Amino acid sequence: MGPVTIFDSTLRDGAQGTGIAFSLEDKLQAVRLLDQIGIQYVEAGNPGSNPKDAEFFHRAAKLSLKNAKLVSFGSTRRKGIRVEEDSNLAAVLAAGTPCCSLFGKCWKFHVDKVLETSYEENFRMIEESCRFLKSHGREVVFDAEHFFDGWKDDKAFAWKALQAAVRGGADIVCLCDTNGGAFPKDVEKIVKEVVAKLPVPVAVHFHEDCGMATANSILSVLAGAAQIQGTFLGFGERCGNANLVEIIPNLQVKLGLSCIPQEELLHLTQRAKELAAIANMDLPGCMPYVGENAFAHKAGMHAAGVLKSPRSFEHVDPYLVGNARRFPASEISGRAVVLEKIKEMFPSVGVDSQEARSLLQELKELESRGYQFEGADASFQLLVRKRLRPFPPFFELLYYHIYTDYSDGADRGASATVKVRVGGEIQLMAGEGNGPVNALDQALRKALEIFYPVLSQVKLTDYKVRVLDSKDATAAGVRVLITSTDGKDTFTTVGVSGDVVAASWKALEDSMEYLLLKNAAWKER
Amino acid sequence: MGPVTIFDSTLRDGAQGTGIAFSLEDKLQAVRLLDQIGIQYVEAGNPGSNPKDAEFFHRAAKLSLKNAKLVSFGSTRRKGIRVEEDSNLAAVLAAGTPCCSLFGKCWKFHVDKVLETSYEENFRMIEESCRFLKSHGREVVFDAEHFFDGWKDDKAFAWKALQAAVRGGADIVCLCDTNGGAFPKDVEKIVKEVVAKLPVPVAVHFHEDCGMATANSILSVLAGAAQIQGTFLGFGERCGNANLVEIIPNLQVKLGLSCIPQEELLHLTQRAKELAAIANMDLPGCMPYVGENAFAHKAGMHAAGVLKSPRSFEHVDPYLVGNARRFPASEISGRAVVLEKIKEMFPSVGVDSQEARSLLQELKELESRGYQFEGADASFQLLVRKRLRPFPPFFELLYYHIYTDYSDGADRGASATVKVRVGGEIQLMAGEGNGPVNALDQALRKALEIFYPVLSQVKLTDYKVRVLDSKDATAAGVRVLITSTDGKDTFTTVGVSGDVVAASWKALEDSMEYLLLKNAAWKER
Repeated sequence: MGPVTIFDSTLRDGAQGTGIAFSLEDKLQAVRLLDQIGIQYVEAGNPGSNPKDAEFFHRAAKLSLKNAKLVSFGSTRRKGIRVEEDSNLAAVLAAGTPCCSLFGKCWKFHVDKVLETSYEENFRMIEESCRFLKSHGREVVFDAEHFFDGWKDDKAFAWKALQAAVRGGADIVCLCDTNGGAFPKDVEKIVKEVVAKLPVPVAVHFHEDCGMATANSILSVLAGAAQIQGTFLGFGERCGNANLVEIIPNLQVKLGLSCIPQEELLHLTQRAKELAAIANMDLPGCMPYVGENAFAHKAGMHAAGVLKSPRSFEHVDPYLVGNARRFPASEISGRAVVLEKIKEMFPSVGVDSQEARSLLQELKELESRGYQFEGADASFQLLVRKRLRPFPPFFELLYYHIYTDYSDGADRGASATVKVRVGGEIQLMAGEGNGPVNALDQALRKALEIFYPVLSQVKLTDYKVRVLDSKDATAAGVRVLITSTDGKDTFTTVGVSGDVVAASWKALEDSMEYLLLKNAAWKER
Repeated sequence: MGPVTIFDSTLRDGAQGTGIAFSLEDKLQAVRLLDQIGIQYVEAGNPGSNPKDAEFFHRAAKLSLKNAKLVSFGSTRRKGIRVEEDSNLAAVLAAGTPCCSLFGKCWKFHVDKVLETSYEENFRMIEESCRFLKSHGREVVFDAEHFFDGWKDDKAFAWKALQAAVRGGADIVCLCDTNGGAFPKDVEKIVKEVVAKLPVPVAVHFHEDCGMATANSILSVLAGAAQIQGTFLGFGERCGNANLVEIIPNLQVKLGLSCIPQEELLHLTQRAKELAAIANMDLPGCMPYVGENAFAHKAGMHAAGVLKSPRSFEHVDPYLVGNARRFPASEISGRAVVLEKIKEMFPSVGVDSQEARSLLQELKELESRGYQFEGADASFQLLVRKRLRPFPPFFELLYYHIYTDYSDGADRGASATVKVRVGGEIQLMAGEGNGPVNALDQALRKALEIFYPVLSQVKLTDYKVRVLDSKDATAAGVRVLITSTDGKDTFTTVGVSGDVVAASWKALEDSMEYLLLKNAAWKER
């Protein structure tokens, strides 16, 4: 087996995922990112069916890409017309991409029920459409829609569709499991048979409807496929597409088949986070290889094993995909993991000491009230520090009053008054904001910066609210996570309360205290 | 192949997933649910390492289960002691379950580096521990930890570990891919070989670290495995365990191998939602078979195809797993889907009418501002109704003022004043709550119930906040989803604003208007 090329469809099939909406700027940013990763083909839109995509390709043509060929996607021509008359093909061409991807029918049932035309006309549509784009000098990928279903239904028919594409000059034929229903053993057998017979390279395209898109992709490569279509993070229609962040490391780290430059693989986790940010999604914590929990060892026995030898519970070194080992603090990880984290901070604290015990107890109680320190390491460190090496408070809240107003037909935002004591001094300050939390943040910051100018470097970069027991609706408890940066480090703090403002206050307070302590260089030597 | 039995570990390995924390009540509720589904084995805790689990088994013994055998989980005895002296085995026994699951080492590397004992002692630990539990009349499942890695490293060693379990009387031997690194072709080959040689039934246990746990499970069944271990929704250590809501329908609907009673399969989606609620997690929308988007057709061409014939883009009938087809309203689904939804409400509205066009335009604009109607059908219907069949407003907001207070060392909650006009009358009302939104909700409700007593039946059941562009942190826009019920129907409304209070107001307003319109029986006949 030679190297495997990657055909990314995040911006086309991925954009068909529920909840995904890319702006034009998002798409340009994503193309640059995919190019940087070293993806060979980036299918980025369907200009015939979406006018926004036409504008995108116009802008994208000005990008100078190092690795990726842009691909525009569309259907083979409509039935009963000449290729030159087809507005969709014209749009695919007008996109001006070096490569075009055209889908056509390979399943009789679809020709009968969806296309409603003759089988011969279907084959002509495929052949002529491919030839048309080839005659304009484009590389052509033929997407054999519903290929596996079509083959199982009538092998001769499906084969004729592929032959039509090859006659039309298609450079690559992609076998698509469009409805996601294909099973691994069928896939392996069918891909092997097609690869043996077809004179052009074979690609595959799977969906996750049976939860087996990754395995189907890997088995296809082992059966001779030369190219994998998929999307980053598995975005896509219904249950999503084959997830490239699983497939690329599976091929490259575990099977030794090169897909992208080795140095880019070392940044895969970071790239996955960047792509999630572009899509305005959270990267699922349990996503293989790149998720925050992909190398998190929660069970006490697993954590203890990994501390002895990482290989004992890790199938690959997280470093190889730019991820890191984690020991989340939780009731199951038990003493070993929490103590490990405490010892990192305070090497002298005894494992069986009274102070370590009572800290563990307090952590359990906080967890039962809805706190989660797994994603809020700064709050965890702050708590440990407060209990084991108490320090005089940097500031003390005396009160806040926040006023939120809607009048004369418009939301008037919020204003906050905050009174804090710092040492012997009292500072009263006001702030305004979009909403109550923003106003509180502004007022507190202004008040504290008078005493601690270093706080002016702190910026909030993320703010998340999670309703804890949604059954109580607007009266439910909430967990607020705030991520801050001082330009060098990024750190996350947590607050829990029945009131979103009070929970936000706690997370804000932690973020300021954490930074002030950090600047006081407080780690035990 | 005969029927396949299902061994659920949601409450044991699933509880090892990051972010998962089951209370004792949660666990009892989950056991009842799994029993109802028809799962044969429910592994529900590790009483030797978690004292809470011991208490759980005491309570669980009183449940009268129809289908499920409870299983307690633990390690084989510690090295160098007699089985009768092992506190962990004693705890497994004391749990009083009809079946016990014991894990032991099958990979030399683990015996060397983690266990740090001789190979012969390792085999004795396995054999004696199995025999000990058998002698107390328990059914014993031997979990062959890291079996696939162990076999690839030293087949003879791994085989000896299985033989030790069989000699000890194990009823079932489970081949575990503990670190989740196994690949399908290896799995198929190894399971086939073990099944052919071993005198007892073979089970398998996979993890999702390579994204192939489902495929590995299916291939194992085809290679002769008689039992699948997994968790509901795929909860579990690191990337999670093999997901039973994928595996059960794959086996039962697609391969015709019975796992659970057929009538329970028809409720699988509902059961998945119930289990997610117990775990206090959102069911991921793209989860195969049971996710909200598993049968959602967003692309215009897919939606058009499904409207002609569902089989065209669905690999199974969603009814068979208790799910439903959806056409989310979005820019990609285009006119066809949105018009289909509009026509459901107003059959007389023309597809090409000016009013339909301008409504589509408005929907696109709202989406670009952060609205998503995919999960907020009540707001969508309300908007369509307002544009196509305007009605006099039920109420008009004149102002709200909300005061949030922290003083004397404690959060004092919030109070709201709301002034609304209903017909010619003006009503001023106040409310208190945990936080600003809760106070606003209370005041508004009290004011409107005077005019519309039917609103007293409405309860909010869910409240969700999503930060839209988290980069602006506390000043970012937010999308609020509110789910309400009037005891009969449940409906969700949406609001978007830079201010969480204003966004919540919009969603609240929609929920009240929707209910008032519904009671006015407003659908066009």
